[in-house]
Amino acid sequence: MSFSVPVKDMLFAMEHLANLDQVTQIPGFEDANLETAQAVLEECAKLCEGVIEPLNIVGDKHPSSLNDGVVTTTAGFKEAFAQFAEGGWQGLQHPVDFGGQGLPKTIGAACLEMLNSANLSFALCPLLTDGAIEALLMAGSDELKAIYLEKLISGQWTGTMNLTEPQAGSDLSLVRTKAEPLPDGSYKIFGTKIFITYGEHDMAENIVHLVLARVAGAPEGVKGISLFVVPKFLVNSDGSLGARNDAHCVSIEHKMGIKASPTAVLQFGDHGGAIGYLVGEENRGLEYMFIMMNAARYGVGVQGIAVAERAYQRAVQYARDRVQSRPVDGSVPGAASIIHHPDVRRMLMTMRAFTEGCRAMATTAAAAYDAAHHHPDAAVRQANATFYEFMVPLVKGFSTEMSLEVTSLGVQVHGGMGFIEETGAAQYYRDAKILTIYEGTTAIQANDLVGRKTARDGGQSARAIAEQIAKTEADLHASGTAAALSMARHLQTAREAFLQTVDFVAGKAKASPNAVYAGSVPYLMLTGNLVAGWQMGRALLVAQDKLAAGEEAAFMQAKIITAQFYAEHILTRVPGLAHTVCTGGESACALPLEAF
Amino acid sequence: MSFSVPVKDMLFAMEHLANLDQVTQIPGFEDANLETAQAVLEECAKLCEGVIEPLNIVGDKHPSSLNDGVVTTTAGFKEAFAQFAEGGWQGLQHPVDFGGQGLPKTIGAACLEMLNSANLSFALCPLLTDGAIEALLMAGSDELKAIYLEKLISGQWTGTMNLTEPQAGSDLSLVRTKAEPLPDGSYKIFGTKIFITYGEHDMAENIVHLVLARVAGAPEGVKGISLFVVPKFLVNSDGSLGARNDAHCVSIEHKMGIKASPTAVLQFGDHGGAIGYLVGEENRGLEYMFIMMNAARYGVGVQGIAVAERAYQRAVQYARDRVQSRPVDGSVPGAASIIHHPDVRRMLMTMRAFTEGCRAMATTAAAAYDAAHHHPDAAVRQANATFYEFMVPLVKGFSTEMSLEVTSLGVQVHGGMGFIEETGAAQYYRDAKILTIYEGTTAIQANDLVGRKTARDGGQSARAIAEQIAKTEADLHASGTAAALSMARHLQTAREAFLQTVDFVAGKAKASPNAVYAGSVPYLMLTGNLVAGWQMGRALLVAQDKLAAGEEAAFMQAKIITAQFYAEHILTRVPGLAHTVCTGGESACALPLEAF
Repeated sequence: MSFSVPVKDMLFAMEHLANLDQVTQIPGFEDANLETAQAVLEECAKLCEGVIEPLNIVGDKHPSSLNDGVVTTTAGFKEAFAQFAEGGWQGLQHPVDFGGQGLPKTIGAACLEMLNSANLSFALCPLLTDGAIEALLMAGSDELKAIYLEKLISGQWTGTMNLTEPQAGSDLSLVRTKAEPLPDGSYKIFGTKIFITYGEHDMAENIVHLVLARVAGAPEGVKGISLFVVPKFLVNSDGSLGARNDAHCVSIEHKMGIKASPTAVLQFGDHGGAIGYLVGEENRGLEYMFIMMNAARYGVGVQGIAVAERAYQRAVQYARDRVQSRPVDGSVPGAASIIHHPDVRRMLMTMRAFTEGCRAMATTAAAAYDAAHHHPDAAVRQANATFYEFMVPLVKGFSTEMSLEVTSLGVQVHGGMGFIEETGAAQYYRDAKILTIYEGTTAIQANDLVGRKTARDGGQSARAIAEQIAKTEADLHASGTAAALSMARHLQTAREAFLQTVDFVAGKAKASPNAVYAGSVPYLMLTGNLVAGWQMGRALLVAQDKLAAGEEAAFMQAKIITAQFYAEHILTRVPGLAHTVCTGGESACALPLEAF
Repeated sequence: MSFSVPVKDMLFAMEHLANLDQVTQIPGFEDANLETAQAVLEECAKLCEGVIEPLNIVGDKHPSSLNDGVVTTTAGFKEAFAQFAEGGWQGLQHPVDFGGQGLPKTIGAACLEMLNSANLSFALCPLLTDGAIEALLMAGSDELKAIYLEKLISGQWTGTMNLTEPQAGSDLSLVRTKAEPLPDGSYKIFGTKIFITYGEHDMAENIVHLVLARVAGAPEGVKGISLFVVPKFLVNSDGSLGARNDAHCVSIEHKMGIKASPTAVLQFGDHGGAIGYLVGEENRGLEYMFIMMNAARYGVGVQGIAVAERAYQRAVQYARDRVQSRPVDGSVPGAASIIHHPDVRRMLMTMRAFTEGCRAMATTAAAAYDAAHHHPDAAVRQANATFYEFMVPLVKGFSTEMSLEVTSLGVQVHGGMGFIEETGAAQYYRDAKILTIYEGTTAIQANDLVGRKTARDGGQSARAIAEQIAKTEADLHASGTAAALSMARHLQTAREAFLQTVDFVAGKAKASPNAVYAGSVPYLMLTGNLVAGWQMGRALLVAQDKLAAGEEAAFMQAKIITAQFYAEHILTRVPGLAHTVCTGGESACALPLEAF
């Protein structure tokens, strides 16, 4: 069951939906054109298909193990990570100044996706390292940058994010890890952190922990949290590794999925105190963490797309091979491969449409990120930042929730064989379930979408997106083909339902918080559904033009059909969700606590 | 995390929705009144809560193992099964003539549910044994009945269903196992059967395999399949066990869930031929198997409800205990238990409403089964048979699909802890995924609903149900409370959408089979959703009356709220699905095979 990176679809999204040519007009990204993108993607695909994907099932069968504080990763992971680092992949989107390749996120996101399709567990290590790099880039002192950045960007060292404590999961105000200032400006860190992805492993020389802690005397709550760098090994002034720091892995979790990725409990300071270095200013840790987390949230959304793509490909291959039953239309005289059966088609198309829709959404969001961070014009930066901020909870929340449905369908296509672990489909189902939880659960994303992204500006950003969607509808109407008209109708119905919920959410969030927040996840699901569908509508228009021009006929025809399927099978969920958002808040919260 | 059987809700469904008092008017069921039901349920609950549930996590951690052809079940299973058998629970619904208790399915279904809530893996053994008993009762010769029934009904022996072969899963026409007639009227059986639940184990003295095979010279396809009894140990004329039969377990599967239940590959006849005895007539095996399978399908539907209930209870307990974040309405000054957060409420209510709705649907279906099989009036039997037949794919298909959503929400409520195996929530998520597959996948149920249950009678049975729903709507309107009116409105919208799909499905199944069957699963999902919602509407009316009469105020109030929630959060999905059924058939099947 070989894996083949969907390079063509990724490039399509970059070129036609994310407008890569506009990204290349941003200073610093001049060379990041379609040719570069294609070359990068094809090179990355080789590594992902040939080296990293074959380790996926192995990692599930033989997870990382802990022995006396030392975590040994699955055989092959260390060597694969060395290849990954050597190829410069860790530095893809990071600044040239520190040894990175300085490519836009628009291209980097595709590489991130294929790495995660190949192996979610493996890909988590670079994902978390990216977070550490961004935190240091954003808020680290020049000294910290000089010591840590190049080695993180080269993949010589890796990074972690240490937020969660046993009593502090989604609620970081409850963080209790302590930081005591030392005379030399460093701190001693004491506390326990849990759920630390790649918190300990053998794939790199050093691990750079980014740790939330409270400086003695800091205010209660989230305003008293600071961010520290706590390396596994202290670093000498010449850059060589010094003493082992007092940060130790005391256990790793026994998880349902992503088993190869070690999830550590880290104990800081049990032997006198772990040495930590303040990042930025005291008590601004949560702020830094949030910027870093936003990047990680986007990354987790891409993980959802990635595992959906992998599940889709495996299901297609099985459906082609497995012969069972005569087609209901009599098109084949005897038993046929099950891909001939309408419900198998429906399942595969659902998997495909969700994946392509979310990929399109994530790619356009990535382009907005690039413009928001690097465009010379402040107004353009601002507009793109607003759009990107709105997209982050959708990319994270919707793409991961859809990955649960897609990986479930992936098992279902396999029938009984899907439930047998050796088949491989079950692993995606188990792996995917963490995606709706870590880096902020779907509810946390939905709260963000309701509170900061919709209610705060009175629904303005949301309505601006609806206006853009209306323009796409007009273009679809103008095109007049059956597929375009179906898409236009479904988009319109969904957009109108969305606008009703925006009015409800923006209008009532303060007066009736329970009723609004009880509908927050349905609101996120309908908004993500609509925005991904909108991108499929845009894709449909492009594909029609290309088809008419005789370019890539098979690909373009498939895009049109997939877009129409999205409209008729997925966008159709939006009005019901909108109705639930606007009417179901009271019944959701009415049951007395003791009656549950 | 203790488990508490929802006896009160089960009795409510029996008394008020399934009209147990009408069941007790059927000859033979005179004593099966509410008092009996309550006593039986409470007794069964003790066993399930105290003995069988505690083995659930153990079984997941230490699955059945195979050694040299011998399967050893999880420590404790054998003793628990002995207690189960001793209590007479295997014979609950089986005829008094053979040592059973002769209770109606209306009561038996509740016991089946609690057994499965306690431990899906354990409960599969009795479930399959029930199937073997029903096959023998229906089509076995007096001799076979005399030899096997009492021992199966007493739980001294257990039964299996042997349908699947490597090349024959959903498509039984491909069965290749051979049966060669012997001079004494018995047969020698040769072949390989896979996915045989409890095909080998150590919990009973003997295992009675019901095996589909082809007699030499039988017609091709499904019309040449016969059904055989193939005991693990041959039975002497005095009923004692004789020689080991040539039916051997050669491997057991490594599964994602229900790990304690051994799923065997059985090899028949590798050492000269397994002795088998024909059940009924030659070449009618599939017919017998289908009747038996209908019972098993209902049972699997109940498994969905059962695991949903268990996941719900565990999530509620966690949500009460876990303290995290301040409620959005400011009702608690600091961090509160997460059950105070609106989205957690929404998740728990979704789990609860799905479970109660499907339980109500399954219980009313069970009462129809009892009347269909035992009512003295042929017309009543026929009407109930038609209703029950329509319900089976809904109970199986919808209740198991909803169990995927509910067990996923169960993990989600737990946040990161849900992904850690020791928490227990993940097991339900893994276990549940088989339910939409075995005993006929959701697509197979949907084909049945479309073909045999809807198109064949031109939609008549479906419309008859819609008429009954309309009556409930009228009652709800007459009641006039806010909850009743909300339910009435949502039922009406959903029913009208359902009727559109019935017209489409009944009208086009022959002319456009691909378009109709591509919508078969959405059709099943919307129909199951509507029927379960209808039962919640009926429940709401009863609860209002009881509340007015001052009976069980807390329970009745909760039922009303849960019903209203069902209407506003779950019934709202129906119109979108109906739209997909009626418009999405073409786009589902349009993609050329090579484009996937």
